[in-house]
Amino acid sequence: MTDLQNYLTNHKERFLNELIELLKMPSVSADPAYKKDVLQTADAVKNRLEEAGCSHVEICETDGYPIVYGEKIIDKNLPTILVYGHYDVQPADPIELWTSPPFEPVIKKTDIHPEGAIFARGACDDKGQMYMHVKALEFMTATNQLPCNVKFMIEGEEEVGSVNLATFVKNNHDKLKNDVILISDTGMIAKDVPSITTGLRGLSYVEVEVTGPNRDLHSGLYGGAVANPINVLAKMIASLHDENNHITIPGFYDKVEELPSEERAEMAKAPFSLDAYKKSLDIDAVYGEAGFSTNERNSIRPTLDVNGIWGGYTGEGAKTVIASKAFAKISMRLVPHQEWEEITELFKKHFESIAPEGVKVVVKPHHGGQGYVTPIDSLGYQAASKAYEASFGKKPIPQRSGGSIPIVSLFEQELQSKTILMGFGLDSDAIHSPNEHFGVWNYLKGIETIPLFYKYFTELSK
Amino acid sequence: MTDLQNYLTNHKERFLNELIELLKMPSVSADPAYKKDVLQTADAVKNRLEEAGCSHVEICETDGYPIVYGEKIIDKNLPTILVYGHYDVQPADPIELWTSPPFEPVIKKTDIHPEGAIFARGACDDKGQMYMHVKALEFMTATNQLPCNVKFMIEGEEEVGSVNLATFVKNNHDKLKNDVILISDTGMIAKDVPSITTGLRGLSYVEVEVTGPNRDLHSGLYGGAVANPINVLAKMIASLHDENNHITIPGFYDKVEELPSEERAEMAKAPFSLDAYKKSLDIDAVYGEAGFSTNERNSIRPTLDVNGIWGGYTGEGAKTVIASKAFAKISMRLVPHQEWEEITELFKKHFESIAPEGVKVVVKPHHGGQGYVTPIDSLGYQAASKAYEASFGKKPIPQRSGGSIPIVSLFEQELQSKTILMGFGLDSDAIHSPNEHFGVWNYLKGIETIPLFYKYFTELSK
Repeated sequence: MTDLQNYLTNHKERFLNELIELLKMPSVSADPAYKKDVLQTADAVKNRLEEAGCSHVEICETDGYPIVYGEKIIDKNLPTILVYGHYDVQPADPIELWTSPPFEPVIKKTDIHPEGAIFARGACDDKGQMYMHVKALEFMTATNQLPCNVKFMIEGEEEVGSVNLATFVKNNHDKLKNDVILISDTGMIAKDVPSITTGLRGLSYVEVEVTGPNRDLHSGLYGGAVANPINVLAKMIASLHDENNHITIPGFYDKVEELPSEERAEMAKAPFSLDAYKKSLDIDAVYGEAGFSTNERNSIRPTLDVNGIWGGYTGEGAKTVIASKAFAKISMRLVPHQEWEEITELFKKHFESIAPEGVKVVVKPHHGGQGYVTPIDSLGYQAASKAYEASFGKKPIPQRSGGSIPIVSLFEQELQSKTILMGFGLDSDAIHSPNEHFGVWNYLKGIETIPLFYKYFTELSK
Repeated sequence: MTDLQNYLTNHKERFLNELIELLKMPSVSADPAYKKDVLQTADAVKNRLEEAGCSHVEICETDGYPIVYGEKIIDKNLPTILVYGHYDVQPADPIELWTSPPFEPVIKKTDIHPEGAIFARGACDDKGQMYMHVKALEFMTATNQLPCNVKFMIEGEEEVGSVNLATFVKNNHDKLKNDVILISDTGMIAKDVPSITTGLRGLSYVEVEVTGPNRDLHSGLYGGAVANPINVLAKMIASLHDENNHITIPGFYDKVEELPSEERAEMAKAPFSLDAYKKSLDIDAVYGEAGFSTNERNSIRPTLDVNGIWGGYTGEGAKTVIASKAFAKISMRLVPHQEWEEITELFKKHFESIAPEGVKVVVKPHHGGQGYVTPIDSLGYQAASKAYEASFGKKPIPQRSGGSIPIVSLFEQELQSKTILMGFGLDSDAIHSPNEHFGVWNYLKGIETIPLFYKYFTELSK
C-alpha cells in the first residue's frame, strides 16, 4: 500500500465530514435569497485552503460573488498547476422530488455506489470534485510530496455564467500564470472505464418574452380574436427545429466543426448501451438530430433546448384567461468554432423575425461561452493519462462532453495554457437534478489520482 | 320621474354599499384556500334575499359549494321567473397588476364610467350583476309592484364548471319550475347601445401533462439526445392550428353551425371600431381564423386557446435543465351543436395520437358545457326588448357572445324553459382580469330595467 493509500485510509472519515460540512451551505448563486450563504461558503473555502497548506490565501472581491485564490509556491523553476473549481451550486428545485433535503447531506448506498454516495446539491457539481483537490494538496504538503507549485482559483458564479471571473482573469495574468490548468467539473464514462474529457460544448442562454394584449383577457370574449402569447410562443419554439430536428436559425450551423468519420468511429467504440440508457431515464425511445447517434447528439452536435416556460394561469383548477405575456428560458449548446456571441445574435435576430403580427417579442441574452478541445498529445493530457493508468489500472478514454465550462476557452485565450478536465463524476450522479450525489469511492479515487497527475506532469516537464 | 327612479335615487348609496360589502368576500371557488370565504358569501346572499322580500330562502348543500335558493310566490296562476346568478369569483392573480386590492372595493372614475365604477374581483362577474336582481326584487316588494312569481338560484361554482348545479337542477324539476329564466352574467355592446345576448359558446377545458425522462436532466449532458417535454409540448400545441388558424383536431368542425350570409351581414351592422379595439388592447394587429371578422371569430366560431403553461426552471436567472414534465391548461370555445363531451374526447384522442416517441402524454378533462341560442321571437326576448327600450330609450341589438355559461343549455334541457341573458357589463370591465370593475351607472340601470322585464313578461304572458 502506498503512503497515499495509507493516508487516505487514516483520514477518510474526516475527508468525508469536511465535505459534508461544505455541502450544508446552500450556495445557490442564481437566487439572490442565498446571498449570505454563498458568501459564507467562500469564507469556508478560504479556511480549508489555508488548513490544506496554501501559504497565501485571499478572498478576491468582484462585482458579483468573490473568487477564492490560494497558492503554494515551492520553487519558481518548477512547473505551476492552476486548479480551478467553483463553490456555488445549482438551484435545488423541484425540491419536492428530493428523497432527502438538498442541503442536509446523507450517505446512501446505490446500485452503482455500493460503498455509498453523498446525496446533496453540489455533492458532485462541484463542491465534491473541487474539494478532492484541496485534500490532495493536504496529503502532498503533509507528507512533503508536493512536486511543483500550485495555485487555486475557486469561484462562486460558475452556475450563472462566470461573468466576473472573466474580468478577474483578464486583470490578473501574472498572478494566475501557470503551465497547465486542472479542473474536476466533469464526469467519466464508468467507475471501471476512466475517461478524460477532451472537448466541451459552448453555451448561449437567452430568455424570451412574448407580449400580446396589454392585460389578461377573458378567453370567451377574446378567444380566437387576438394573438394568444402562449400559443404564439409555442409556435415560435416549435419552428426552431425542422422535421429532422435540425435547428432552423439561419447561419446556426455555418461554423460547426464536422468530425472526420475516423474520429466518429473512435467515439463509437466507447461502451454504451442504448437499452440501459433508455431504462435509466424510463423513456421508450431517444430523440434528436437525424443522422447522429445518441453519444454524438450530446457531444459533437449543437442543440437547442427550452429550460423553462411559463405564462397564464398555472394554479389549481381552471381559469379561462388569455395571458398578456408568456416567457421561456432557452439555451443552445455549441460546438468548437461556433462563436457564442454570434449565435446569440443569430437567435435574437431570427426569433424576433418570426414573431407574428399582434405580439411584441423581447429576447434577453443571459450568458454564454465558447466550446473547447484539448489535444491528446499535449503534456497535460499525457500526465493525466499516466495518473489514471496508475490509480485505475487502465488507460483512460478521451471523451467529448456535452456540457459547458464557458471559462475554459477564456483561460486558453487569456493565460495561454491548456486545461485538463479530470472528472470523477458519473452521468447517473444527477447533477442539476433532484437527488444529486457523488460516490464515496469516486471522491477518494479522485484524491488518489490528483497527486499522481502532479508527479507525472512535473516529471514530463523536465 | 317614475317611483322606481325615485326609489333608486333615495336608496342608491345603500345599494352601492351593500354590493361593496359582498365584494369584500374573496369567494374564489377555484382555490381551496378560500373555502371559508366562499361559504360565508353563500350565507350573506341568503340574508340579502330574505331582506329583499323572499318568503322562503334556504342554503342547499351539494357535493361542492352550496346553492342559495329563494322564492316569492304571489299567485300560482301568474308566470314564474327563475333568476340565476353566481356568488363565486375568478382567482385574482396576477395580483401585482391590480391598481387596488381585488377584495378591497373602491369606486373610481374612468373615461367610460365618468359616474364612477366599482373596482373589485367579481364587481361585474357576477356579484354586481347578480345583486341587481336582489335590489330589483326589493323595490318591487317594497312598493307592492311584484307582478308575478320569482325564484332565485344563486350558485357558488360557476367559475369552476357548475358540476354540482347540474345535479341540483336534475333533482329539483318541481322546485325550479318556471316560465322563463333570467340571467345577468354577460355584457352589452356599449352604454348607449343596449344589446341582449342571444347566443353563448360552449366550453371544453382540459389539462395536459407531457412526461419525458423520469427526472430533470442536465441540458449539457442530455441536451439534443432525449425528447425535451417542453419543446415537445410546444410542438404539439403549435400543431393544433394550421396556417389559416383552423383547428386541426379531426372532426372538430363536423357539427359547427354555419351561419347564413344574411345573419352574418346583420351581425356586421353592430357598431365596431377595429382601431379602437386594437388601441384598447395595445396590439398592432388582430389575429384569428382566416375568412372571419373579429366579431365572428369571438362569437360564432369555435376556438382553442392555451390558458396556462408551465415547466422547467421559471425562477430568477438561468438553470441549464431539461425538465422531466411540462404542463398546459387548454380550453376550447364551442358553438351551438358542438357536443362538449364529444369535443373533449376528440381532443384527448388527437392529442395523445400526436405525442412523439420518447414522451408520455396525459390529458385530464376539467369541465365543459354546451353552447346556446335564444330565438328573438320568444316571449322572453320580446319582454326583454321592451324593457330595454323603456329604460334606455332605444331598441336593444341581439348579440352572440363568445363567452360560455355552460348551464344555460342544461336549463333548457332539464327545465324546458328559455333563458334570457340581460347583461349590463361592458367588454372594458376587465372581467377575469386584474382591475375588474362595474359601472355605477350600469349597476343602477340594471336595477331599473329588471322590474320592467317582470312587467312586460307578465303582460305578454296573459
